[in-house]
Amino acid sequence: MRTLLKNARIVTMNRDFDEFSAGWILVEDQFIVALGDGPDPEMAVDETVDVNGDLVMPGMVNTHCHMPMTLFRGLGEDVDDRLFRYILPLEREAVTPDLVRIGARLAALEMILGGVTATADMYYFEQEVGRVLDRAGMRGVVGQTLADFNPPDHNSFDAGFGLVDDLRDEFRDNDRITASIAPHAPYSTGPEIMERVAGYVADNPDVCIQMHLAEMKSEMDWCSKHYKCRPVELADRTGILSPGAIMAHCLEVTPGEISTLAERGITVAHNARSNAKAGRGIAPVEAMRQSGIAVGLASDGAMSGNTLDIFAQMAPASMFAKLLGGSRKPMPAREIVKMATIEGARVLGLNNKTGSLEVGKYADLVRVSLAAPRMMPIYDIYAALVFTANATDVQDVMIDGEWVVRKGEALSLETARVLRDAAQIADTFSLKIRLIDAKGGNVPGV
Amino acid sequence: MRTLLKNARIVTMNRDFDEFSAGWILVEDQFIVALGDGPDPEMAVDETVDVNGDLVMPGMVNTHCHMPMTLFRGLGEDVDDRLFRYILPLEREAVTPDLVRIGARLAALEMILGGVTATADMYYFEQEVGRVLDRAGMRGVVGQTLADFNPPDHNSFDAGFGLVDDLRDEFRDNDRITASIAPHAPYSTGPEIMERVAGYVADNPDVCIQMHLAEMKSEMDWCSKHYKCRPVELADRTGILSPGAIMAHCLEVTPGEISTLAERGITVAHNARSNAKAGRGIAPVEAMRQSGIAVGLASDGAMSGNTLDIFAQMAPASMFAKLLGGSRKPMPAREIVKMATIEGARVLGLNNKTGSLEVGKYADLVRVSLAAPRMMPIYDIYAALVFTANATDVQDVMIDGEWVVRKGEALSLETARVLRDAAQIADTFSLKIRLIDAKGGNVPGV
Repeated sequence: MRTLLKNARIVTMNRDFDEFSAGWILVEDQFIVALGDGPDPEMAVDETVDVNGDLVMPGMVNTHCHMPMTLFRGLGEDVDDRLFRYILPLEREAVTPDLVRIGARLAALEMILGGVTATADMYYFEQEVGRVLDRAGMRGVVGQTLADFNPPDHNSFDAGFGLVDDLRDEFRDNDRITASIAPHAPYSTGPEIMERVAGYVADNPDVCIQMHLAEMKSEMDWCSKHYKCRPVELADRTGILSPGAIMAHCLEVTPGEISTLAERGITVAHNARSNAKAGRGIAPVEAMRQSGIAVGLASDGAMSGNTLDIFAQMAPASMFAKLLGGSRKPMPAREIVKMATIEGARVLGLNNKTGSLEVGKYADLVRVSLAAPRMMPIYDIYAALVFTANATDVQDVMIDGEWVVRKGEALSLETARVLRDAAQIADTFSLKIRLIDAKGGNVPGV
Repeated sequence: MRTLLKNARIVTMNRDFDEFSAGWILVEDQFIVALGDGPDPEMAVDETVDVNGDLVMPGMVNTHCHMPMTLFRGLGEDVDDRLFRYILPLEREAVTPDLVRIGARLAALEMILGGVTATADMYYFEQEVGRVLDRAGMRGVVGQTLADFNPPDHNSFDAGFGLVDDLRDEFRDNDRITASIAPHAPYSTGPEIMERVAGYVADNPDVCIQMHLAEMKSEMDWCSKHYKCRPVELADRTGILSPGAIMAHCLEVTPGEISTLAERGITVAHNARSNAKAGRGIAPVEAMRQSGIAVGLASDGAMSGNTLDIFAQMAPASMFAKLLGGSRKPMPAREIVKMATIEGARVLGLNNKTGSLEVGKYADLVRVSLAAPRMMPIYDIYAALVFTANATDVQDVMIDGEWVVRKGEALSLETARVLRDAAQIADTFSLKIRLIDAKGGNVPGV
């Protein structure tokens, strides 16, 4: 099967940031086999798509998400201490394999429609999430969460590790879905479990680690009180900061801790909107990248960041870096697009497969319309993507050589059914959260 | 002429924030004559629009713009000291009445498509901007800029005041367009001209003042060096802080200065994205509003903020307030929507005419689709508008009882022609800015 895309403005996001003004891409089966500028190659193909001057860019990568929480989007806004007060009680009451499947479908639908072709995820009943991502045609690094707060799918860490085994077994031979182990955070696992996770990954090097780290003041306080140190130091002692581990947030990191993180070879998921909405501050992304840490953009769960597309993260990521630096210079638009694509792929350990348009890579690509008046004129295509484009400009999306979106409509998921199921299950959550709130939202054992 | 909108989810943004879940609005000629929830009124109408469960909200208000600069969108990104280095030389070389007209058309097109029904603007050849807004069917407060840096349309302040006279004369009887006088900034006019502006407005109370104030470090330094004070104090001495004057930015204001601004009855245009992109900081919006100052959302020019719609300003305005406050609590979504609508209208002095859906007000309203998967579920309609909706969700826009947008297409402007003209005139600016940069971009007399 050969598909030719032609008449495309192309940003490749390869090492030289090559751009083509009237380019073409030849896809054979799952792979990009040729691309270039100027006249199309004359050869027999099965499908020719004239993209009519639209932009073609690599599929975007979401480096941190809790997909099923899309059903909680917009619940419990503007309230501090939400995690213990609302979220954990709500999850314990409401989260079932059904909810996870239905929420993950809604999330996958939003992501493919917005041009996200690969995502990291961590939640409960994560096998369901992996299955949804597989059906949606996406790439995913799916992390079974482990935590001590009596979460919906395990009442002991032994049971939690069992779920990781199941996840690994199910997706062992899946080319697009990678099993991952996701200790929730230092304060919700403790150093012994972090050590055990490090050991598990040493024994199973195909399994990637995801964890929330150095995210908020209560975490800093907990760490200081119980271990007389900061979270990065505690985590480092346990060996969990192993090469390729994805650490989400990393807001509260000193220059010395950044050096430690860089030396260990971990990667970072930057949740710009979610962190800012929580009033928690701005992660020192520029400093982390300058130390050689790969930093990707991330939506976080929709209960925290509201959207799951990466367009919505790009302008905040740039603005926040400029605010932190007190200058226009930090993090120009091209660097932001890099974080949204090839650098995000590196965070997920997928940079040899996806994240740029290059011969030999899997055909994960997005067609973005440049036609809206708000896009005009375009002097800098990266600034246009970062500051004016939005998820609705996405026209077509291909993953692994398969079209999953055409003309803004999902092909790999049944939109009407996904929305109907989501509406039905979401119906009672507003009431539930009010009841939890009325009861003071206490979490036993926390 | 009577139009009935029915089957609408309505946010009125009236004093009680009334919302209707299955509502209707009756428009007669220019005015809203009735609205409510439940069964439609049974009466003869000329047009019935079933909005099919979409949201109807008041038209949004942009409180600070430089519409013709839309042609410079994305030029000179990521460079400090742009105003003197690039923008003023480029403007002196390129800005003509033709450019102003073509750029203002592109801006008006983007604004109506994004649900903005009223805007403040300040630029050169501002009569052209007023004419474009009038033709586009929008409301506008159009400010002739006055400055000492030899701008494109006046080489003396006397000539500049003459242009204000012309503007006032042309739009004296126009119900939708209000003439305004726009001294550029303290550092580019000086106290004598600010005094003269205050005197002009005392003699012509129909003319509103717009000015950039307390925007950046170089302004603070200039003021300190030449007048041994800060910009708010200098401005206050001249009498220019008169009731209803619109001050853009107000980033560098102390609590004492906020009290002064509140006592004088000025209003503030908050340019969240533009200020952040410049790395200048976050305006203390919550403190200003708590002092009783009306603060509206604003796009600034597209060379600074890239977009002109107000959806793009809402999430940043909320996130920045939460970052500044170190908590999720500041500036909940409903307050942000208030700033985008009725409070913005108050900034423009139009709150008796527009900004909310109430009987007796002009029919300025926007239909927003809630159908995209990324909008689902909706527990909090304001959070959905602030954090997930975007300009592309706007379906229909009515201003002054006239449809200016239907099904996402502009009726009052000829889209293809506007885009063609814009593309043609924008063609050479990239080259021009490179030449200006190569010459060091010096501005004589600065």
